[in-house]
Amino acid sequence: MNRDELLALLKPEMAKIDEAMAEDLAGIVDPTLHKIIHHGIFNGGKRVRPLLMLLAANLCGGQRTSDAYRLAMSFEYLHAASLLHDDVIDHAEQRRGKPSANTIWGNSNVILAGDYLHTRSMTIAGTVGSPEILAVIGKATASMVEAEFLQAKTVAEIDRSVDNYFAVLAGKTGALISSPCEVGALYAGADENQRQALHDYGQALGLAFQVIDDLLDYQGDPAKTGKAVGNDFQEGKMTLPLLHALDQAEDADRTLLLDLLAASPEKRKEEIATAHAIIEANNGFSHARDKAESLVDEACAALRIFPDNEAKMTLLGLGRYVLTRQK
Amino acid sequence: MNRDELLALLKPEMAKIDEAMAEDLAGIVDPTLHKIIHHGIFNGGKRVRPLLMLLAANLCGGQRTSDAYRLAMSFEYLHAASLLHDDVIDHAEQRRGKPSANTIWGNSNVILAGDYLHTRSMTIAGTVGSPEILAVIGKATASMVEAEFLQAKTVAEIDRSVDNYFAVLAGKTGALISSPCEVGALYAGADENQRQALHDYGQALGLAFQVIDDLLDYQGDPAKTGKAVGNDFQEGKMTLPLLHALDQAEDADRTLLLDLLAASPEKRKEEIATAHAIIEANNGFSHARDKAESLVDEACAALRIFPDNEAKMTLLGLGRYVLTRQK
Repeated sequence: MNRDELLALLKPEMAKIDEAMAEDLAGIVDPTLHKIIHHGIFNGGKRVRPLLMLLAANLCGGQRTSDAYRLAMSFEYLHAASLLHDDVIDHAEQRRGKPSANTIWGNSNVILAGDYLHTRSMTIAGTVGSPEILAVIGKATASMVEAEFLQAKTVAEIDRSVDNYFAVLAGKTGALISSPCEVGALYAGADENQRQALHDYGQALGLAFQVIDDLLDYQGDPAKTGKAVGNDFQEGKMTLPLLHALDQAEDADRTLLLDLLAASPEKRKEEIATAHAIIEANNGFSHARDKAESLVDEACAALRIFPDNEAKMTLLGLGRYVLTRQK
Repeated sequence: MNRDELLALLKPEMAKIDEAMAEDLAGIVDPTLHKIIHHGIFNGGKRVRPLLMLLAANLCGGQRTSDAYRLAMSFEYLHAASLLHDDVIDHAEQRRGKPSANTIWGNSNVILAGDYLHTRSMTIAGTVGSPEILAVIGKATASMVEAEFLQAKTVAEIDRSVDNYFAVLAGKTGALISSPCEVGALYAGADENQRQALHDYGQALGLAFQVIDDLLDYQGDPAKTGKAVGNDFQEGKMTLPLLHALDQAEDADRTLLLDLLAASPEKRKEEIATAHAIIEANNGFSHARDKAESLVDEACAALRIFPDNEAKMTLLGLGRYVLTRQK
């Protein structure tokens, strides 16, 4: 299944998820709150997490009832809530190439709007879903917060552990990709094997997604990603291309990188080309791409217990799509 | 039941709630996250919301199992989460006379710690509790956010509506006082009448609590409240003493107040004594106190359907305590 076929198949589903969200959000009373949340939800986004839940449910024989779409949207709410709070935390001025909500409405309103979406997401998870589904989502959110703290620690300590890098990824991105897959299985009444397989698919896919994201941070086209090149390096984030270079480089280059990581963000911004060249020379980028590819292989392999059908083909297609995305 | 008798009765319960929280929070991995949340939870606080849930459950014949304490603590988590986010939003430097968490660990960490407590609270509500209990809490949290936006609107528009004042109170404070009362009833398997009575008790008690809070803002002893006198007026908050004065004052005094409300916060800070005198002369403070007393009467009256027992006496005692509190 190529990218265009995949999108053609998913587009009507994305529209139904959007419809469910618009209907639900019509219950918001305050017009400013409604505007902020509308901006957070409908300013782009590919509905990856809700789609994963629906596809996982389908794969386990579940029907796409209106409740399934409502449960699916709770993942988009949670994702949007975390982006709203992230942009406040990072003082981000842009999101998907447009002014961030905090730039338009200020931090206070956006923190509150994130809280609203967070509450709504969990309420839907535990009522339209079940206590078991709520527990999965609660654990994923707790992991996200823990991962943010771990990441801050790896930046502060210039931590060179690849294990910690993947632990951050598993919490920050993996948990919110694996949990819709797992919830789809639970919602469809899947057995334990199926649930585990979909969890493993989601976990590996989420890691691959984030490894590619970290690659795009160094190699992406700013016009497509909407982010400046080398932003992670400037912030001192210890991502895989950099970690691999630190491990592989000769002493002189390693020392140079470590000195830059101990210097100011301004200094790192000036020297981004130097860092880029050292990473390239030590195969940091190709190593990260190889790793992403093997993670996608792992994700796809986890689905081998399921019979071949459209849902499975779509989930496999999404895996391949992760590797080719440019933003 | 006087204040000392009430506290003696509640102290062992408060200790058990604290124990349940300390045990649960030991599951946090990151030491910084643990410190922030510990600070947010254990830096004072009277556990009013968990106690209300336990007492309401008792009144309806429920037993105090360890699960009851766990469900009760979810209300303290939600309360603490909202205080953490509030202090970031208000740039508060102090909380209960000590440095606020945001002053110590910065806004970003505190936003995330609030998110963690929020998630944990709702997960417990929907797993230790039930989907129905989760829905009550989800609705309360959504009301809190809506009320923050309504309050911002009343400040911006110098809104003189007493109805809007009480709508803000109902969302900001009432919902998180009435929901533990209602949840206690639900948890004990109470009938619809009992549930409604406890909801009404909590709603009226929450309003009374906040009216007294608004009075203390003008009349409290800063050494006890930990807040500067007249803070609400400085921020342009339209609270009951001020609203009553605006309604009752002669034209000249009303115009003076309205001009101050349209002026800068600095100007209002300078002129707080003027505002205080006009409110006093127009019985704004005594009116607010009368209103709080009649709300407590209303709260106590809602409990008349229950037989007299220790839980009921304690809930009635809490009502009276609200009127005498000085911080």
